[in-house]
Amino acid sequence: MSIKNETSRITRRNFVGLVGAAGLGAASAAVFGAAANPDREVVQGIPTVISAAPEEPTTDHSEHNATGDSTPTTGGDSVDEMDAMHEQGILDFPAPTEGLGGQPLEYELDGDVKVFRLTCDVVRWEYAPGQYSDGYAYNGVIPGPEIRVNEGDTVRVHVTNNLPESTVIHWHGLIVPHSQDGVTFVTQPPIKPGGEFTYEFTLREGNTGSHMYHSHHNAAEQVTKGLLGAFIVEPNDPNKYGEFDREYTIILNDGPIGGFTLNGKGFPATQPVMAKKGEKVLIRYMNEGLMIHPMHLHGMPQLVVAQDGWPVPQPYLCDTVNIAPGQRFDVIVDATEVGAWAFHCHILSHAESAHGMFGMVTLFIVEE
Amino acid sequence: MSIKNETSRITRRNFVGLVGAAGLGAASAAVFGAAANPDREVVQGIPTVISAAPEEPTTDHSEHNATGDSTPTTGGDSVDEMDAMHEQGILDFPAPTEGLGGQPLEYELDGDVKVFRLTCDVVRWEYAPGQYSDGYAYNGVIPGPEIRVNEGDTVRVHVTNNLPESTVIHWHGLIVPHSQDGVTFVTQPPIKPGGEFTYEFTLREGNTGSHMYHSHHNAAEQVTKGLLGAFIVEPNDPNKYGEFDREYTIILNDGPIGGFTLNGKGFPATQPVMAKKGEKVLIRYMNEGLMIHPMHLHGMPQLVVAQDGWPVPQPYLCDTVNIAPGQRFDVIVDATEVGAWAFHCHILSHAESAHGMFGMVTLFIVEE
Amino acid sequence: MSIKNETSRITRRNFVGLVGAAGLGAASAAVFGAAANPDREVVQGIPTVISAAPEEPTTDHSEHNATGDSTPTTGGDSVDEMDAMHEQGILDFPAPTEGLGGQPLEYELDGDVKVFRLTCDVVRWEYAPGQYSDGYAYNGVIPGPEIRVNEGDTVRVHVTNNLPESTVIHWHGLIVPHSQDGVTFVTQPPIKPGGEFTYEFTLREGNTGSHMYHSHHNAAEQVTKGLLGAFIVEPNDPNKYGEFDREYTIILNDGPIGGFTLNGKGFPATQPVMAKKGEKVLIRYMNEGLMIHPMHLHGMPQLVVAQDGWPVPQPYLCDTVNIAPGQRFDVIVDATEVGAWAFHCHILSHAESAHGMFGMVTLFIVEE
Repeated sequence: MSIKNETSRITRRNFVGLVGAAGLGAASAAVFGAAANPDREVVQGIPTVISAAPEEPTTDHSEHNATGDSTPTTGGDSVDEMDAMHEQGILDFPAPTEGLGGQPLEYELDGDVKVFRLTCDVVRWEYAPGQYSDGYAYNGVIPGPEIRVNEGDTVRVHVTNNLPESTVIHWHGLIVPHSQDGVTFVTQPPIKPGGEFTYEFTLREGNTGSHMYHSHHNAAEQVTKGLLGAFIVEPNDPNKYGEFDREYTIILNDGPIGGFTLNGKGFPATQPVMAKKGEKVLIRYMNEGLMIHPMHLHGMPQLVVAQDGWPVPQPYLCDTVNIAPGQRFDVIVDATEVGAWAFHCHILSHAESAHGMFGMVTLFIVEE
Repeated sequence: MSIKNETSRITRRNFVGLVGAAGLGAASAAVFGAAANPDREVVQGIPTVISAAPEEPTTDHSEHNATGDSTPTTGGDSVDEMDAMHEQGILDFPAPTEGLGGQPLEYELDGDVKVFRLTCDVVRWEYAPGQYSDGYAYNGVIPGPEIRVNEGDTVRVHVTNNLPESTVIHWHGLIVPHSQDGVTFVTQPPIKPGGEFTYEFTLREGNTGSHMYHSHHNAAEQVTKGLLGAFIVEPNDPNKYGEFDREYTIILNDGPIGGFTLNGKGFPATQPVMAKKGEKVLIRYMNEGLMIHPMHLHGMPQLVVAQDGWPVPQPYLCDTVNIAPGQRFDVIVDATEVGAWAFHCHILSHAESAHGMFGMVTLFIVEE
Repeated sequence: MSIKNETSRITRRNFVGLVGAAGLGAASAAVFGAAANPDREVVQGIPTVISAAPEEPTTDHSEHNATGDSTPTTGGDSVDEMDAMHEQGILDFPAPTEGLGGQPLEYELDGDVKVFRLTCDVVRWEYAPGQYSDGYAYNGVIPGPEIRVNEGDTVRVHVTNNLPESTVIHWHGLIVPHSQDGVTFVTQPPIKPGGEFTYEFTLREGNTGSHMYHSHHNAAEQVTKGLLGAFIVEPNDPNKYGEFDREYTIILNDGPIGGFTLNGKGFPATQPVMAKKGEKVLIRYMNEGLMIHPMHLHGMPQLVVAQDGWPVPQPYLCDTVNIAPGQRFDVIVDATEVGAWAFHCHILSHAESAHGMFGMVTLFIVEE
């Protein structure tokens, strides 16, 4: 049986506890132990929705650890100043920010039909500590809430558009009737500002695994601004993709607004991946950005088990999984090595600057 | 038995007919039905060859749906103006433009030798409706005409260079004698302006499938400007790559001159992929650009059967095929779902702007 | 039995001899034969180490064949001037430059422990003939020296930091104890300027093949500047990856300082790959840059046998191997075709400009 969305329950206090238990070296343990405020919790509240706001998106990047700054500059910092900035990022991790996307979306049953509701809003989103952008969001969060159903389910989704522009929703990877595919003027008229639309489809046998939902109208802008989410279809055979004990979804994005993010946040505001020694962890990579992102895990190899929701003919091992825009890869990690392991995009300019780690970085933490 | 190059016979009239038959939703059918000029034909004539012209290439991008514009801007357009531009692109599809590349190149027989002729010319090429660039072309078209032969054939190609600079032709993926490999100063002297060169080689057993020919002299410029084409070798075993009923070749390019193109055209001037329900369609992706292009098909998965002309050990399913520069992937799509399905590069800035779809977008149309 | 690092013994004289023996066409042979100085040797000395220098890196790109110039410009050159520049690059290959990285690093034995020593220094590095940058280097060379050990070995590495900033070393692909993983403030404190650190770990059973070592502190800058090297673990089963007679390692980099390089050099200063007809050649690709690099070999296909050091479930053939940052792919080429074959990144702007080949280009030379 798998444990889902474990990250949402991580607080600074138990993170430090876990890291302490993980047998870090003395220097690192000292660093983690020095955290100023170990019991502050990750804020999970829904941020202020400002859908009516017609103003242009603005970006407030603080100078240090700027999420979107891919050009590292040493500037005039001394060695100790540079190192202190590097250390601060680790001390701050996982840094509290307002808003947490990707949590399970509740549904109502109408007979056998699972009924979901999504609104599209302009939100002021905190991508990294103190860094805000006016993004677009489903139900106020980036990524949108996770939709999770079972193989063969019938799904209905009511969509309300509170954006200042039209939109539609495409079910990326799902095989749905043409009229429900969500491409403006190809399968449906646009959902105008203030408008509503209802999608309904029955999932095909075999069409399971890691998929996405996102805008397919002015999409280069709307998706990179945040109109994206995970759509996961549980297979009737629970071992279709191999056995695992926990799972995480990591949605990659690289929008001009929010910079380089994992699940809508840049380091140190990213959420850690947590496991107990000996567990098998399924990770679902989904690329909603405009660039490739080769995700590199330290300490343990990754076993690739599925591509775009389809089991690969033969699972294969690697340590760096290259995910192109629109692709999904599922991997299983055997959490054999205790410790807090670096886990990041290996396009290093998406992960580290002269001021320390930022953007597409998290830690994979294995406890005894 | 496969049907080849079906796209060349598509006209606006039968496209609308097919789409109508494909059971589109009411809104879309209405949109397609509203086409102002349903019986105009796709112009397939050879465009004006202006080889002698020494002037610098010029680009005339219209403001809307600019093929090369990867930075979507909303500007001051109202919602309705934006949506109208999105709709217009779909209404215009497949938009007539001057010139159509990739059509079969005729050959003469000299004994058992298949003899082809290619000229290299400067052409004014219409990449998208009303958008022209001074490209380079084989036989006046971009991509150059398709060369198609059989496994084991002996091939002779006479090349005449009408360009204002030297060139050579490399047979990308073919195993040919060193002297015929087409790399300036490594295997041969350059073919000077006004000069000629004849290549001749016998295809090796097993060296079949989807290959390319293109310039290997000043190639970053010459290839992205249009000196490229498909070279397809039919295997003696017709089921070497699996069974299929139709086939299409999609050459990806992203030159600074013509922008993001499929077979030398940007949406809405791209050609649709057509199939009857139940047919299996082979698609040969070939990347002649400078960037990756992950090609995403809606509605039906893609079965990858070959990489660079070599059958993969085990075909695998996905919905997004990432093709890097120089690579070819062959996929087979089982056309089970009736409708006109979006089919595009999933680097969304190569496919959609605030003014609607452009560039690397087409439709995969399945009729009853 | 394999022959390693053959390239270090290539001189201009025997290169020309080999090419002459390889049966090139008359034109090319004439070109190669015209080399002005056929007996000059590739300089392999260690370049001047200027670690104490605190000044900013400077770049001296000559105008022609600029390694880092990805924007080809024709300028006002005549056809003959352009062709002469193209020819000159081939004539110059392999051009002598100061410094050669990637040579085997000697070790001392302390009981059963293999003890290596690495220093980190600022160096003035000649990336291409006459083109220098102030890079960062292990033991004065870019890439750093190759560390090669056996499956199950215990390895100790003494590191001395002579850089003007802190650093650490990460063993990319190796499964090491957490405290030895080399990530600043996550697994250890930084190694300050003038500081030292000793890593020690025992290689796991099965953790073999093609890996890397590189900085994991300010890494986007430090790695692209040159703090990188190959770490190869010989498997106890010599045929784990298939049989081969020779091997080469090709480290890809694309730093803002040195431009597009193979093993720290841009064409024509790259080293050729050499083989005798009938030999099987293992090539280890390692991407230490910030971009993908699809490596295309002319003349013979590449059999992919391993990804990130792990044997692939079923080897597969291709002619273009796309390597993303952080990835390694091992391929075996059956050297059946005599000749000097072009071998390059197929992002053509990384390999050729209007002034000829530069950057990520070499030749794969097969002799009778």
